[in-house]
Amino acid sequence: MKKFMNDPQQFVPDMLKGIALANPETLRYVPEFNLIQRADSPSDNRVSIIQGSGSGHEPAHVMTVGPGMLAAACPGDVFAAPPMDYVYETTKLLASDKGVLLLVNNYTGDRMAFDMAQEMSEADGLTVRTLFIDDDVSVQDSTYTVGRRGVAGNFFVMKAVGAAAESGADLDEVVRIGEKVNSVTRTMGIALTACTPPSKGSPLFELGDDEIEIGVGIHGEPGRRRAPMAPADALVDEMLDAIVPDLPFESGDRVALMVNGLGGTPISELYILYGIAHEKLAARGITVARNYVGEYCTSLDMAGASITLVKLDDEIERLLEAPAEIAVRVF
Amino acid sequence: MKKFMNDPQQFVPDMLKGIALANPETLRYVPEFNLIQRADSPSDNRVSIIQGSGSGHEPAHVMTVGPGMLAAACPGDVFAAPPMDYVYETTKLLASDKGVLLLVNNYTGDRMAFDMAQEMSEADGLTVRTLFIDDDVSVQDSTYTVGRRGVAGNFFVMKAVGAAAESGADLDEVVRIGEKVNSVTRTMGIALTACTPPSKGSPLFELGDDEIEIGVGIHGEPGRRRAPMAPADALVDEMLDAIVPDLPFESGDRVALMVNGLGGTPISELYILYGIAHEKLAARGITVARNYVGEYCTSLDMAGASITLVKLDDEIERLLEAPAEIAVRVF
Repeated sequence: MKKFMNDPQQFVPDMLKGIALANPETLRYVPEFNLIQRADSPSDNRVSIIQGSGSGHEPAHVMTVGPGMLAAACPGDVFAAPPMDYVYETTKLLASDKGVLLLVNNYTGDRMAFDMAQEMSEADGLTVRTLFIDDDVSVQDSTYTVGRRGVAGNFFVMKAVGAAAESGADLDEVVRIGEKVNSVTRTMGIALTACTPPSKGSPLFELGDDEIEIGVGIHGEPGRRRAPMAPADALVDEMLDAIVPDLPFESGDRVALMVNGLGGTPISELYILYGIAHEKLAARGITVARNYVGEYCTSLDMAGASITLVKLDDEIERLLEAPAEIAVRVF
Repeated sequence: MKKFMNDPQQFVPDMLKGIALANPETLRYVPEFNLIQRADSPSDNRVSIIQGSGSGHEPAHVMTVGPGMLAAACPGDVFAAPPMDYVYETTKLLASDKGVLLLVNNYTGDRMAFDMAQEMSEADGLTVRTLFIDDDVSVQDSTYTVGRRGVAGNFFVMKAVGAAAESGADLDEVVRIGEKVNSVTRTMGIALTACTPPSKGSPLFELGDDEIEIGVGIHGEPGRRRAPMAPADALVDEMLDAIVPDLPFESGDRVALMVNGLGGTPISELYILYGIAHEKLAARGITVARNYVGEYCTSLDMAGASITLVKLDDEIERLLEAPAEIAVRVF
């Protein structure tokens, strides 16, 4: 294993420290609870949106904290749910008169931590709601889930509820929007290589030289099947054939199309996939009205990509268009 | 080799097509000359900034076209200089009363193509200047260069001359600014793995399981030495010990610090490097006033990173702060 790090046990804290040093005016890092929060949050004028999950999926979620997005992120160690007391402390720190919304990708370990933290916070008199994201169409129940997994589509839920919260919407309305966006968001991913967790030091699973995992999870969980490597055209077909009928997305629909890199795939390849997917959707009568190409939810150094579609209406488009400022900057 | 592509020969055109489909209102793709240009350029009110280079370094440069940055990018095939006639045609297409500035990373193949294109354009009566970027401190002469190589520091030159051009500066002034920024910019990179060009299908060079290349070039060219993998602390020291004395950067200086991923390294590791570099510079009395963490100039799927320092003054800071809109979007 070759990774830029000092101590595998300090991988997450060292990353969080770097993020904080890079954003001294806008973000605050609270080492004792491993959290990154907006320096100007909480505010009683807006619902506090918090997302937690295992680390290793950056920029999700510690780099998507900021105005119009998350009030705080509460990460666990690499591929590990955050401890319930960290979620609880984060919730208390971000408590707002308007309430707190916890966003959770649907994994059993995360659900447990967040459910318990919500209970503990409510016992303190806080108003807390939780929203589970489950956009991955690849498998129904999975290694670490009952039901579907939450993957890169969580970006759209975060963005929409972040915009609603920023505009002063109340908690019920923010929850309604989050549930609505999650209900029209579908994702599927393909791994070309495994990923290597810092503490393990070796790949999490084995893939042959010409082998790929179709429907991979963001922790390397098995998807639908192993297959031989194939041209991008065929891989995009495979993903769209799973995603499009699932909602279903239909001729005449306007969609947001995300091509998300899983960590080790260069952006050149993501744009190749984007061009193919855009045209294949057009051939199905589906219009790509908004596009997202880059890394949004990764799996450490895994080479691979996922495709996400969101069915748009005027309300969702307005929320996705709303300004947001997050810690990941291009320039 | 597992890459998301259809045909290795169409890697670059398929990527450019994807970029164009993702940015239909702001960018124009001209397939016969492999170029991406601003839809609203040329304008006789501003110098047209063009950068060309081999592909495989994305987002440089085809994804950094837009207001406040490049008027056009003129890429060659992967790791190959653009043909001189493509540079010539791009220059003619972007001709402006205020003139054209060609930005070229200092590689012999690129210099030849751009020198000839400049001559041909001038014979047509166009006003064209060329600026060579050579920020890499790793080696003096290199596999493909006489003098130093141009690497990720080219971002700062692009950004500064792009801002100056956007504000209406004349060609002499834009050139002065570009030369000034190049003269105070220094970079060094480290490869943890090789990269695999699509047409070659196998890694460009061999690195052992615990071996790294210190001072690597962005085409995998040898740097200063092979070394065993080391903790991030030691690697940052190695890079800063080469970069800082070179200008030199001194106690009291304000700098921009870029940690650039080479394509296969996740952003989590880049922020670990950032945190370390920020603190080590502070210990030398050097203040990081602006920071850039992400992928700016890559080497296909190479795992690795480079550090760039730019010595700031009020003029350079103002140019780096100026707004710019490019095709790579985070949200």
